[in-house]
Amino acid sequence: RTDSDRLWQSLMDMAKLGATAKGGVNRQALTDLDRQGRDLFIQWCRAEGCTIRIDNIGNIFARREGSDPTAKTVMAGSHLDSQPTGGKYDGCFGVLSGLEVIRTLNEHNITTQSPIEVVAWTNEEGCRFPPCMMGSGVFTGVLEFDAMMARTDADGITVSDALDAIRYRGSDEVSPSEIKAYFEPHIEQGPILEDTDTTIGVVIGGLGQKWFDLTLTGLEAHAGPTPMNLRRDAMMGAAEVTQALNRIAFDHQPHGRGTVGCMSLHPGSRNVIPGQVKMTLDMRHWEPEALISMSQSLATAVEEICQRHGLEYELTPTANFAPEHFNKACVDAVREGAKQLNLSHMDIISGAGHDAMFVGRVAPAAMIFVPCKDGISHNEIESATPEHVHAGCNVLLQAMLNAASV
Amino acid sequence: RTDSDRLWQSLMDMAKLGATAKGGVNRQALTDLDRQGRDLFIQWCRAEGCTIRIDNIGNIFARREGSDPTAKTVMAGSHLDSQPTGGKYDGCFGVLSGLEVIRTLNEHNITTQSPIEVVAWTNEEGCRFPPCMMGSGVFTGVLEFDAMMARTDADGITVSDALDAIRYRGSDEVSPSEIKAYFEPHIEQGPILEDTDTTIGVVIGGLGQKWFDLTLTGLEAHAGPTPMNLRRDAMMGAAEVTQALNRIAFDHQPHGRGTVGCMSLHPGSRNVIPGQVKMTLDMRHWEPEALISMSQSLATAVEEICQRHGLEYELTPTANFAPEHFNKACVDAVREGAKQLNLSHMDIISGAGHDAMFVGRVAPAAMIFVPCKDGISHNEIESATPEHVHAGCNVLLQAMLNAASV
Ligand SMILES: NC(=O)NCCC(=O)O
Ligand SMILES: NC(=O)NCCC(=O)O
Repeated sequence: RTDSDRLWQSLMDMAKLGATAKGGVNRQALTDLDRQGRDLFIQWCRAEGCTIRIDNIGNIFARREGSDPTAKTVMAGSHLDSQPTGGKYDGCFGVLSGLEVIRTLNEHNITTQSPIEVVAWTNEEGCRFPPCMMGSGVFTGVLEFDAMMARTDADGITVSDALDAIRYRGSDEVSPSEIKAYFEPHIEQGPILEDTDTTIGVVIGGLGQKWFDLTLTGLEAHAGPTPMNLRRDAMMGAAEVTQALNRIAFDHQPHGRGTVGCMSLHPGSRNVIPGQVKMTLDMRHWEPEALISMSQSLATAVEEICQRHGLEYELTPTANFAPEHFNKACVDAVREGAKQLNLSHMDIISGAGHDAMFVGRVAPAAMIFVPCKDGISHNEIESATPEHVHAGCNVLLQAMLNAASV
Repeated sequence: RTDSDRLWQSLMDMAKLGATAKGGVNRQALTDLDRQGRDLFIQWCRAEGCTIRIDNIGNIFARREGSDPTAKTVMAGSHLDSQPTGGKYDGCFGVLSGLEVIRTLNEHNITTQSPIEVVAWTNEEGCRFPPCMMGSGVFTGVLEFDAMMARTDADGITVSDALDAIRYRGSDEVSPSEIKAYFEPHIEQGPILEDTDTTIGVVIGGLGQKWFDLTLTGLEAHAGPTPMNLRRDAMMGAAEVTQALNRIAFDHQPHGRGTVGCMSLHPGSRNVIPGQVKMTLDMRHWEPEALISMSQSLATAVEEICQRHGLEYELTPTANFAPEHFNKACVDAVREGAKQLNLSHMDIISGAGHDAMFVGRVAPAAMIFVPCKDGISHNEIESATPEHVHAGCNVLLQAMLNAASV
């Protein structure tokens, strides 16, 4: 068993770096606070006798050797960076659970056949430098290194310069082919485990995602003198597209998701009919065909709505990730771990993107979810209990031992 | 007949003050550019032998005496202030048409029984200092003087200080009871005259207005892991309210109007379900009962939508003006004028609020509309033809003569 108090203490110590007044964390990728978090993590790993490797995008790999020098590594990890209004658990729980596994193995003098490795991926959140999951994306070849180095934040600073500034551009070459199994513990960031009073989510994969930017262009005109039938009201179109997206998601239950998160109206005056609306669309599904069918239905709906309201439109894809089905053996290892520990558990699909979904494309991977309060994440009030966090860490230990001793 | 070239030249000269790169005008109320516009107008009026009165809110009255010292005044006017992205005609057309009437009477040595007076109302647009129609509102007692003096712009400057800064706080007492008839020429700001190829709109009144601020509050949550049926998506509610407002307006044709001009989503991130949406609602109608029925339908719809989506809401009225029916004799004078001049004309209802609608509450009033290109106003591309502008000014002359010589 892992040590609940030690794990909790490490989570709380890490949360001091970038702590916000409202009890959350602001430790965005490649800032000096991120550097402090990385330094602390490395210091803790060195104290456990780990060797450290850092690759060209700043991913940190901390290694505890196994008995077989030729064996592939059993890896755990997640990320240390946070949203600007982030919580204490999103990311850190995965990384520090990996560290707690190593501390537990050391404490009990357990030798595994495979080496055990903990990874902290660079810039999972993508809030300062889009896109998200940048470190694991480059590591797995899903994202292109040079293109990512050139990405800039709102101040025009590149990833390349920010990485040098915190001195985390490494030269170690780490290959996905070294990985025997990758496990990522994470808070669920959704309400299902809490709703069903379940401690462990055995994550069998992640929803595919299609993101779009949509611009609707009509004609701005005075709200008073312009009769309803002579309007080209971009907001009328935007309202109908929002409803269409929601209807399409509801038509594709239980896995369909549809969200309009951003919308801006031009000119944005209370007595002017909006001549232009810009909005974002986020669609997700578990089945590749359903995701395609959803996006086709959306395209048809947008076309029809714009025709009817005399609007022009531009629908631009901004992200497109296929659903990820995790490796059966890894998923089984997690489920077995939960069973061995007598923890309530259920199979679950991740609605959010995670580093594990990129790793899963090139190596066996799975995830372990624990509940978070009210399903809330990316919010300073994000919260999880010591019991759930500890249970997730114990399942990680069990799953890693299952994988490492085979 | 008035002088088309002289009127046009005055419009173009006035449009130089605050001219924008895109051909529009930015001459907001109580700025130094507004002062320059007022100074120019007064200089032109003085050159025609007018006496000038300025009241406590800076409304300017330029008077050409009549033959009967006890007679009430026949007044024309509108406003000289503009939107930040305003056009050359909105407001100025009315004021400078009044001036052109005086110039024409002088040129032809015509003596009217009633005095002729031209008024430039302060802050019609309300964009720097809400609300709109401030000068005519104070003059007619619809708006309270002290409250208006305390209104501030975005920099915290009060109307009182701004009025002093441009030295347009007057001490002349001008009473609505002096007015025999008030005529306000204005561009239509809508598409109806152009659509029906009509030169003169005989404005029989103005739509009533009810404005609201609506805040919808749900729960912000991650767009991926949150199933559709567990969401409290404020944007879903906002989309449905937008549609309900439009449906209600369509159900109350031909006079109903419904517009959502502003909307802001919190937190406004593409993969976060909006926890809060703030939006504005603008409803208008010609019949008082219909306007009440519209706002009742809206309240019912908002209640039902919020119930269904688990949202809380706050629906706050921000403006409430009854429909204004103009004085029959004044309207007839405008219609007669158009007939006498053989101009195509139609009765029309103003969809926008105008100073005439406040004046009409306390004195006989009517308006004269001319077409503007594509019905566009509050936009730098606002445009009107010299022919239409001249026709409107001739109708004003005719209507004023009809009223002044009786
Ligand atoms: N875990 C997480 O918040 N990922 C961000 C990308 C997403 O929206 O799924
Ligand atoms: N004429 C005009 O633009 N008035 C502004 C108030 C309104 O929205 O009707």
